Amino acid sequence: MNRVDIAIIGTGPAGVSAAITAAVRKKSVILYGEKTISEKVRKAHMILNYPGLPQISGKDLAGRLAEHLQVMDVGITEMKVTMVYAMGDYFVLQTSDGQMQEASSVILATGMVQARPLPGEDEFLGRGVSYCVTCDAMFYQDKTAAVIGYNRQAEEEADFLADVADKVYYIPMYKEEPVLKEKIEILREKPLMMFGEMQIEGLKTENQVLPLDGVFLLRDAIAPGKLVPGLEMDGNHVKVSLKMETNLPGLFACGDITGTPYQYIRAAGQGNVAALSAVSYLDRKKREAE
Amino acid sequence: MNRVDIAIIGTGPAGVSAAITAAVRKKSVILYGEKTISEKVRKAHMILNYPGLPQISGKDLAGRLAEHLQVMDVGITEMKVTMVYAMGDYFVLQTSDGQMQEASSVILATGMVQARPLPGEDEFLGRGVSYCVTCDAMFYQDKTAAVIGYNRQAEEEADFLADVADKVYYIPMYKEEPVLKEKIEILREKPLMMFGEMQIEGLKTENQVLPLDGVFLLRDAIAPGKLVPGLEMDGNHVKVSLKMETNLPGLFACGDITGTPYQYIRAAGQGNVAALSAVSYLDRKKREAE
Repeated sequence: MNRVDIAIIGTGPAGVSAAITAAVRKKSVILYGEKTISEKVRKAHMILNYPGLPQISGKDLAGRLAEHLQVMDVGITEMKVTMVYAMGDYFVLQTSDGQMQEASSVILATGMVQARPLPGEDEFLGRGVSYCVTCDAMFYQDKTAAVIGYNRQAEEEADFLADVADKVYYIPMYKEEPVLKEKIEILREKPLMMFGEMQIEGLKTENQVLPLDGVFLLRDAIAPGKLVPGLEMDGNHVKVSLKMETNLPGLFACGDITGTPYQYIRAAGQGNVAALSAVSYLDRKKREAE
Repeated sequence: MNRVDIAIIGTGPAGVSAAITAAVRKKSVILYGEKTISEKVRKAHMILNYPGLPQISGKDLAGRLAEHLQVMDVGITEMKVTMVYAMGDYFVLQTSDGQMQEASSVILATGMVQARPLPGEDEFLGRGVSYCVTCDAMFYQDKTAAVIGYNRQAEEEADFLADVADKVYYIPMYKEEPVLKEKIEILREKPLMMFGEMQIEGLKTENQVLPLDGVFLLRDAIAPGKLVPGLEMDGNHVKVSLKMETNLPGLFACGDITGTPYQYIRAAGQGNVAALSAVSYLDRKKREAE
């Protein structure tokens, strides 16, 4: 497997900034996220305080960030990272296509995600609750599962699940009408909690109780504490030092996931620091190995 | 005296970013620094990693920062701040014209200054060593003093000192030939140390020992620990939290003075955080006063 120097997760200003600086420092990089730059940036109406770009729309800032990546010859891998495992000397990233990617260091720049987990989520994670259809669909042959989709990309995953599972419910958490295989039953109901004993047994919505074998929660981003087992948090945020180090050596975090204020220029600045800290870490490891 | 909400010292990316965000948040601001943006930025050859502005020259980035300030209607006060006094509830800033300015909060963004003080500098500060001719020239009537000038602005101050003092030496720390009043003696000698008992008695250079009553050190920036009495340092850098707070309530720091890496985008990001922390501080104080 081709191990990259730095895997960067997220294409907001933090992740993009980290990728640009890593490229300047000639490190090999894989950058995961939306090719069109994070949706939050794209949808921002007007940004007044990104120094040097007065009164820029989110769409234009996103365009400029994408252009900057092109100038630096950094591509975007449009794949969701569903798990990051710290192996001691390196990291393994699991992506939503079920593939693995090795990296010597990792920068988390996934943005701030919905703070509150769905009741039962933490309890049943790995015991019926999953964030990755490709990874776990095989466990649902002849079974019943629900997909709670927070964006339209989730529809594809639900379709794939329907090929394997006996029965699939799809609960869209967005306004647009989902386009899905006929077999899938769409429920416009607010999910309230998951229940069960050792394994998940069902999902309670505002209208009914659904007996289920599994629930797939397909959010825009996975809460960092769940994405990276063992990552130290500070409330809902990743705990970082001024150098953007986390408690896991070789793993850095930047942008909104490190705390408030949620600001584009702060995120860009932290991305730069995270990249240079990763570079230092890699250089130090290289020296130690010699 | 007109007390401003936030006094910002420095017109690099950190200070400019802080001023822009403070203006967005409708706080009254005084921004001290060079109208043409900090010299370090202006002289940068090419900046590759300021996200959104690929391959921009320092001159162009400086131009864009100046333009952004104009858009936000923030002026630059071209005056050197020589001392910041924490008065508990507010701050008093002394400027090189001998004036005082009150501010409810202060953001230090003066950049990184020469790490090593001239031997004797700390010892004799206020006892013959000064950073401000306008403030202290009056003490040198009929006396002998030296001005160590680190930039051409220092020449004006030396001229002013010559009107008051009996004898003035000028030691330029730059290449250009100083243009000074005839009375002033120019010495192209490296200063080595200042000596004396209670008060300064002279300056030793590489060539000679000059008996003196005072030495004016006119640097591009004053080391933050000397600029703000009581400010906690971490080596050569101001000790800050992730929110850019210093040990002095109401006083924030950002940019290169807070540590490495010395990067423009990091500085801009920290300036934003410092401004929003100052805004929170001001709002909190206002609520407490009500």
